[in-house]
Amino acid sequence: MATIKDIANKLGIAVSTVSKGLNGASDISDEMRQLVLDTAVEMGYASKKMRTKGTRKVCILIENMDYENIDQFGYEIIVGFKLSAARRHWDVSVIPTNLNMQTEEKYDTYMLKNGFSGAFLLGFALHDDWVKQLSKTSVPTVLLDNHIEANYHVGSVATDSFEGIGLAVSHLVDLGHKNIAMLNGSKNSLVSQQRQQAFIQSMKICGLEPNEKLMEYGYYVPDCAKYHVPTFLENGATAIICASDLIASGVISELTKNGIRVPEDVSVIGFDDLPIASHLSPALTTIRQDRIDLGKSAFLLLDGLVHDVTISKMLLRAKFIQRASTGECKNKN
Amino acid sequence: MATIKDIANKLGIAVSTVSKGLNGASDISDEMRQLVLDTAVEMGYASKKMRTKGTRKVCILIENMDYENIDQFGYEIIVGFKLSAARRHWDVSVIPTNLNMQTEEKYDTYMLKNGFSGAFLLGFALHDDWVKQLSKTSVPTVLLDNHIEANYHVGSVATDSFEGIGLAVSHLVDLGHKNIAMLNGSKNSLVSQQRQQAFIQSMKICGLEPNEKLMEYGYYVPDCAKYHVPTFLENGATAIICASDLIASGVISELTKNGIRVPEDVSVIGFDDLPIASHLSPALTTIRQDRIDLGKSAFLLLDGLVHDVTISKMLLRAKFIQRASTGECKNKN
Repeated sequence: MATIKDIANKLGIAVSTVSKGLNGASDISDEMRQLVLDTAVEMGYASKKMRTKGTRKVCILIENMDYENIDQFGYEIIVGFKLSAARRHWDVSVIPTNLNMQTEEKYDTYMLKNGFSGAFLLGFALHDDWVKQLSKTSVPTVLLDNHIEANYHVGSVATDSFEGIGLAVSHLVDLGHKNIAMLNGSKNSLVSQQRQQAFIQSMKICGLEPNEKLMEYGYYVPDCAKYHVPTFLENGATAIICASDLIASGVISELTKNGIRVPEDVSVIGFDDLPIASHLSPALTTIRQDRIDLGKSAFLLLDGLVHDVTISKMLLRAKFIQRASTGECKNKN
Repeated sequence: MATIKDIANKLGIAVSTVSKGLNGASDISDEMRQLVLDTAVEMGYASKKMRTKGTRKVCILIENMDYENIDQFGYEIIVGFKLSAARRHWDVSVIPTNLNMQTEEKYDTYMLKNGFSGAFLLGFALHDDWVKQLSKTSVPTVLLDNHIEANYHVGSVATDSFEGIGLAVSHLVDLGHKNIAMLNGSKNSLVSQQRQQAFIQSMKICGLEPNEKLMEYGYYVPDCAKYHVPTFLENGATAIICASDLIASGVISELTKNGIRVPEDVSVIGFDDLPIASHLSPALTTIRQDRIDLGKSAFLLLDGLVHDVTISKMLLRAKFIQRASTGECKNKN
C-alpha cells in the first residue's frame, strides 16, 4: 500500500505538503490539495483512520430519495443502518448529494478527503457519475437496488422483486383476475426492469399470457397514473399492480375520479408498504419492503466488504400485506 | 409463544412429564418423549436456551459433502463459519447426517430436542426430507446453493453462478474459442440448473449460439468425464468448462489418455479452485468459490435470521484464476 512518502516522491514535493493536502490544511493552494488527493487515490493510499479497527467513519450518500420523515421511503432504511452501526460503534454521516458534487470531485477522492472507510448509496441512478466510477473503486461500497459487476469492493442490497411481484400476481389470480395490469416505475432503473421481468414470469407461471397493452413504465410519483390508467381500462384491466404505494395512491384517485370503485370494479396493489398505504381509502393491499431490514442488511454487507468478505448481493424477503383494495374479480372473461 | 404448561394441558399430562420429555430424561417412555417433542414443535415452543441472547448453540448439518480435510470442498466453508461464530461466542456442532436421521425424526423436532437455535445445511438435495420440511420451519436455517420460497426463517448463500460462468466464457472467447462445451454437475441440483442458464446466457452475450450437443449434465466426480468427453470431441469442442475442479481433473485425464493435449488442442476450465486445481498437470484455470467467505456469509445470514432480519439470499463474487489449462484456440472455425 502506498505511503505518504511514496506520494511525495511521485509528485516531487515535501512529505509535509502531502500531509497538509491529505488533512485539508489551509496553507497550501486548492490546486495542490487536489493534486495530492488525486495522486493518493490513484496510488491506492488509505489513511490510518480509514484502516483502523476501532471506530469507523462511514457515510450514507443520498441522491434523489426522500428520507426526512417516517412517511418517506428512505427514513427507516437509514434508521436500520444506524441501529446496526451503533452496536459496532461506527460513526455514520448522512449526506445528501447532488449532480454538482459528483462532477466536481471523483467518488474515491471525496471518500479519502473526508476519511470515510465505506459508504451506503441510496437513490442513485445507473448513469450517475459516481455510480459509473464504482466499477473501479477500492472503497467498500453498498448500493440499494443496483448492481456493479466484477468489483470485489462493491455489493448491493434489495428486496426480492421476483418474490414480491409473484406474491401480488398469485393473490390476484386467486381472486379470479386475468386481465392484470402493471404500472411500473422509471424505465431507466434496474429494479423496474427486474419487476417487469418478474411480472411477465409470474403471469406465465400462473398460466396467463401478459398483455403488452397492460404493462407500462411510469415514474415513482402519483401523478403518472393519469397517463396510463385510461389505457389500462380501455384494454379491460380488472386489477393494477403498482411499483410503489405512491403510484397506487395516484391510481386509486384516478379510478375514483372516473366513478370506478376500488376494489368492486378494479383491484389495486401497491409496493413498499409506506405508512400512507394503510391510510388510503380503501386501505391499500401491498407488497412490503422491510426498510429497517434493508438498512440492517446494508450494514451487514458493508461490514463484510470492509473485512474482505466479497459479497455481491443480498436479497430480502418481500411480504404480502392484505388490506381492502383488492377483491374478487366479477368480470371473469 | 407456547409454554411447558400449555403443552401439558394439551396432552393432559403433568408439567414435570413435559419437562422430562423436553430435556431427554430417561425415566419416561420413548413414545411419551416423542409425543411431547412433536407437540412442542407443533405448538411453536422454544426453550429458554434457544431464545437466550448469550451463548447460542447452532449446528452445521452435512449430507453428501466431503469436508474432513482442506482438499475437500466443505472444509474451508466450515472453518469460515466457525471463525465468525467464535467471535460472537456461538457454540457450533458439526454433524454428519444421513437419510435415516431424516426419516426417523422431523427437522424441527431434531433441532428442539438438541437445543439448537439455528442451523447451516451443507450438501443437502432438494428432495431430502428435511429440505422439504424447510418451507414450514420456524428454526433459523441457512442453506448452501439451495433456495426455499416464502419462509422468512430460511435463507441461502451461494457463489454467483452467472458471474462465475460469465468469467469462464468470456476468457475463452477472448482466446478465440467458439465451440465451447459445458460439463455440468448433477441435473437435480438448483446450482447446476443455474449454471446451465448462465452458460447459455453468457454465450449469447458473447454473440455465440450454445450448441445442445456441447452441454451435458454429469456428476460431481472425475469419472463422469469419460461418458461425455468423446461426444464433445466428435462435435468439435475446442474448450470445456466443468462444473467442478474434480470433473475437470477427469476431463484432463480423459483427453490425455486419448493423446489430446491440454491446452494446445483443447482448453479446460474448472470451478471451485480446490487445492487440487494448482497441482493438476497442467495447472487448472478455474473459477474460484471463496469457501472461507461462503462460511462467513452463512454465519452473517444466520445471525440476521436469528435477529429477524429476513434475508433470503446472499451471493458471493466468483473469482477468475488463470493457470495453464487454457490457451489460444488454433482451430478458429
